[in-house]
Parts: sequence; structure tokens; C-alpha cells
Amino acid sequence: MKAIVFDGTVRLDQERPRPEPLPGEALLRVLVAGVCNTDVEITRGYLGFAGVPGHEFTAVVEAVNGPDPAGLTGQRVVGGINAGCGACAWCARGLSRHCSSRTVLGILGRDGAMAEYATLPASNLVPLPEAVTDEAGVFAEPLAAAFEITEQAHVGPDDRVLVLGDGKLGQLCAQALALTQARVDLAGRHPAKLALAASRGIQTLMPDQLPSGRLYDMVVEATGRPGGLMQALGLVRPRGIVVLKSTLAAGAPMNLAPLVIDEITLLGSRCGPFGPAVRALASGAVDVTTLVEAVYPADRAVEAFAHASQPGTLKILIDFRV
Amino acid sequence: MKAIVFDGTVRLDQERPRPEPLPGEALLRVLVAGVCNTDVEITRGYLGFAGVPGHEFTAVVEAVNGPDPAGLTGQRVVGGINAGCGACAWCARGLSRHCSSRTVLGILGRDGAMAEYATLPASNLVPLPEAVTDEAGVFAEPLAAAFEITEQAHVGPDDRVLVLGDGKLGQLCAQALALTQARVDLAGRHPAKLALAASRGIQTLMPDQLPSGRLYDMVVEATGRPGGLMQALGLVRPRGIVVLKSTLAAGAPMNLAPLVIDEITLLGSRCGPFGPAVRALASGAVDVTTLVEAVYPADRAVEAFAHASQPGTLKILIDFRV
Repeated sequence: MKAIVFDGTVRLDQERPRPEPLPGEALLRVLVAGVCNTDVEITRGYLGFAGVPGHEFTAVVEAVNGPDPAGLTGQRVVGGINAGCGACAWCARGLSRHCSSRTVLGILGRDGAMAEYATLPASNLVPLPEAVTDEAGVFAEPLAAAFEITEQAHVGPDDRVLVLGDGKLGQLCAQALALTQARVDLAGRHPAKLALAASRGIQTLMPDQLPSGRLYDMVVEATGRPGGLMQALGLVRPRGIVVLKSTLAAGAPMNLAPLVIDEITLLGSRCGPFGPAVRALASGAVDVTTLVEAVYPADRAVEAFAHASQPGTLKILIDFRV
Repeated sequence: MKAIVFDGTVRLDQERPRPEPLPGEALLRVLVAGVCNTDVEITRGYLGFAGVPGHEFTAVVEAVNGPDPAGLTGQRVVGGINAGCGACAWCARGLSRHCSSRTVLGILGRDGAMAEYATLPASNLVPLPEAVTDEAGVFAEPLAAAFEITEQAHVGPDDRVLVLGDGKLGQLCAQALALTQARVDLAGRHPAKLALAASRGIQTLMPDQLPSGRLYDMVVEATGRPGGLMQALGLVRPRGIVVLKSTLAAGAPMNLAPLVIDEITLLGSRCGPFGPAVRALASGAVDVTTLVEAVYPADRAVEAFAHASQPGTLKILIDFRV
């Protein structure tokens, strides 16, 4: 099959063996895959991954290896990227994303979705309603990560929330958080991207418009820059919450004394629940159509990857449909 | 009056003017003061403080400037070190320790307790029951900081908790947390200090006895070392809590990707409630007598300060009683 492979460099492999679903797993025919900043970080050495990257996808279930009580075969799906052992306490709680023996699609020990075929446990899959296009379905994964914030922490309907970073994840976090009716500001450096959020009714700020006081109940760090955390600590109120979304390959020097003095809660936040993400896409509560920068056919996938690696790029999609 | 002064070096000043209590403030005659690691950090440049250090004390109220409805005059007291503006939302909630215009005894904009006299708002003061000695009363402040942990976060009675650092604060945190009946381990490098905790029924661990798995629901970082946080992140379970107690003058490079991947909550934690601290000292629920390493008369205060600056020292007290 056709697949994008990273093994030091990113290349297109026309003859990659098709993955075999293990018992309980589904074979997925990928329709569209997305390129995430994590994929770009992987090409810089993050987590030492080698293989087929990609963890954002819309696919059709070709087959399930074993019983298919949910009737997934033939359905269009999206799905959770963490494949747990199925036996530990985390998996029993439905939190296979924290299973210590998990594999992660295109990130850890499992080939990913930038290929014609991929595999995932059938229990990870969520059918995609007809109202959601193949392209929009790709956003279910990062949108689930945005909903993880309200899964982890209480956001009140009159809170003041700041999202730092006008990239893809920042945009999705701002839209998801604004559903709570909290007063959400999105700060970024790109007027065109801020305009996308403004068109959804979100207050936007350029860096020189950030308040000098520390008035935010919550600040979401989604800049992807090492300095973002220190900036967030300077904007959150005492006893407020900073949500850390950026995963970076390199460590940065930081002075955490302000976190202690002001008793800030720093919340690491990663993958989230797919149910609310799919519902919000289907109802239109969250809009992702303006976040697509370009769609490349699979044969130009290397070019797509290079495009996505340029700073400030919105979502790059790779089309595996014939 | 006699006072210890830090203005680049630590020295004894025999003729420091006695501080004048502002309206609403009490004039305190200090009986015993303690030297805290924060004082040592101050002599290394932390927060740029100059003046009389010291924020741990037992004192007698000489006078209150204004009405004294609580009848504090003549009483032996301990007290909160943050003096708020009295008018903002934080002060209204009884959280003057987060007031943005606060001064902090011996730390920020206010001379401290290493002197014959000091001043604090009368509303900060808590009478010390007779059962608590002058020496033990000095521990009310750091013990309040230990109780701040259960003030900020839920600790269940069957949780597994690790306190990293067998110093003064680590010992107090372990004792305070063990009251919840959580299974508390204290890890440190000093067999004699670990033995003190063991005598209070706390399980103790040398570095080579730390578990290789990540099984703790909460890890309290009280090492005072820059590497303590990364160590804590390697010992807490996914979605667990790391409480950061150390305030350090210098920033250290750190890789926070594990915090994001495992969705750890990092909780900055500082000053705490005096009520439970005084009650626990009075009832004997927490014992501090074994934590005193030496008591110096005020005239030898510089020597006392030098002793306290040596790594691994337990509590050094400075005696201002005649």
C-alpha cells in the first residue's frame, strides 16, 4: 500500500505492507489524514518514533478481526489513538489513553494513519455522522484534545479564559471553551488567523493588546513555543489554572517560583473524549472548515508534510481517496 | 533594638529603630524566631529583599494600634505573614496572602521577625495555647504551609503519597499528610532525619529504595533542589498530583513533556492556614520537638544564620527572650 514513512527523513513508500488487524482490531481504509504539530515534532526526534506517522484521520472500517457487535464494518469512523492492553485498571475505566503498555497510532509503537490502511482496536472507533465531511472528521482528534480541558478542570460560565496561540489547537480550544459561555480571549500573532476566531465571536488579541494585569482564571498554553509557559504564568491570576497543551522535543530553562508563590495549578492536558468532539462537529457548535489550509493528494504527501512544517501553517490534509 | 539585618551580608544591628505599628497593626515583642530555607535563599538574592529577615516566630503582643476587640494585647501569638491591603477581593475572602499589594514579613516590603520587635496586622494573629512552647510555636508558619496541601487538593485516606525531601518542610508535610491516613512515604538522603519521621510512624525510603514504577497518587516536592521536580514527575502516576513547595532563586532547564503526556497536575503551594497548624501543635497530632537542631541567643544570631545555611540542617532557632 501507499504510505508516508519517517525513518530519519519523510518519504513516500508505494509498497509498504498492509497492516494486519490483531484480534479485536479493525482494518481501516483511510480517507483523509491530517498533519499535526506532533507529527512535525516527531520528525525532529520527539519520542524517537520511526514508521508511518499520523493520528488524525477519517476512515472506513474494512473489516473487524473478531466479533463486530457495534456493526462498524462499512461505516465511516474516527477514533481514539491510544490502544491499551485492555486488562489494566486504566483500560477498565475507559482511560486506555493512560495505559502504561499502550501503543499510540503513529506516535508510539504503532504505525499511523498517513497510509492507505491502518489498524486500531474496534473499541476505539466512533461512527461519524453524515453531517460531518471526511475533511472535518480529521479534526475530531484535536477537537477531542480541546474538550479534554473541560474534562479535567471546571470552567465557570463567567470565568475569564485566555488561549495563547492562534494555531490549529489554539483555535479549537478557544471554540470549545467558548461553548461554556466563559469570556474567552484568543491571543496570537497572525491577524488572518485571529480573524477566523473573531468570525466565531471570540475576542482576539495581538501580543501588544494583552492586559498588563493578571486577570485570567485560566490560561491555555497552545503556542508550541518554549516561552509560552512563562508568558502564561504572567497572565493568570493567583490560584488560577494554566493548561499546558504544547509538547516540545526540547526542555527550556524556566523559573517556577511564580507558580509556587501564586499557587498556580499547572495542568498537563493531552488526548480527550471523542463523543463531544463528534457531536460538536455534527451540530456545527464548532466550525473547522476555515482551519484547512490545503489538501494534498497522497502522492504529494511529502510535499504536504513539508508545507505543514512551515511555522504558522493551518491544517494540512492528505487525501487518500482515489 | 537588636535586629538581624541583611543588606548584602547578614549582620547584627544593635540600634535598629523599633518598627511603628500602623493603624490596625500590632507591635510584637519577639520571643523566638526560626530560620527558614527561604531566609537562606534571600541571602542568595531571592526576591531582592533587604532589611530584617524572618517570618517564623512566637511573640507577645505589646500593643495594638487601634481597637483590640479580640483582646490580643499581652497574649502569646503566632501569625500569618502576609499583610494585605484589606480592601481587595482577596482580602475580603480572608486570602490576604494573595493580595497583589501585600507586604510579607521579612520577605517583601516589610521588616521581619529576626528582631526584638516586629509589626503585623492584628487580624493576622492567632493566640498560642499554653500547651505549645515558644519554640514549638515557631513551627506554626511552616506547619500551616504543610496544611496548605490538603487545603488545595483532596487527599483520600487510602491514597499513596510520597514526600520528597527529609528536611524541615518535608518532615512537616509528611506528618500533616499522614493525619489523613493516606499511606505516606518520606524519601530523603539522611538516615538520622529519616529516623525522626520513622519514629512518628511514617514509612521512610533512601533514594535507592524508591519504587521503579509510578504508583503515587501525589508527590510533594520539598527537596529544595532544582532536580526535585523532574524526579517527582517520574514517580507520580498518570493524572496524579505533584505539589511544588520549593522556591528557588534560579531557574533550571526542564522538559515538561511528561507532564502533558501523563496529564499531571502541578500544584504550586505556599503559605497555609494557621488554625489547623496551631490545633495540631496543641493536641500533639504533629510533633516538632525533634526538628530543632540548635537554639542560639540573639547576640549570636549571625552564627545561627550561618549554621542554618549549611545544607541538611534542621531548624535553627534564635532566642530573643532575656
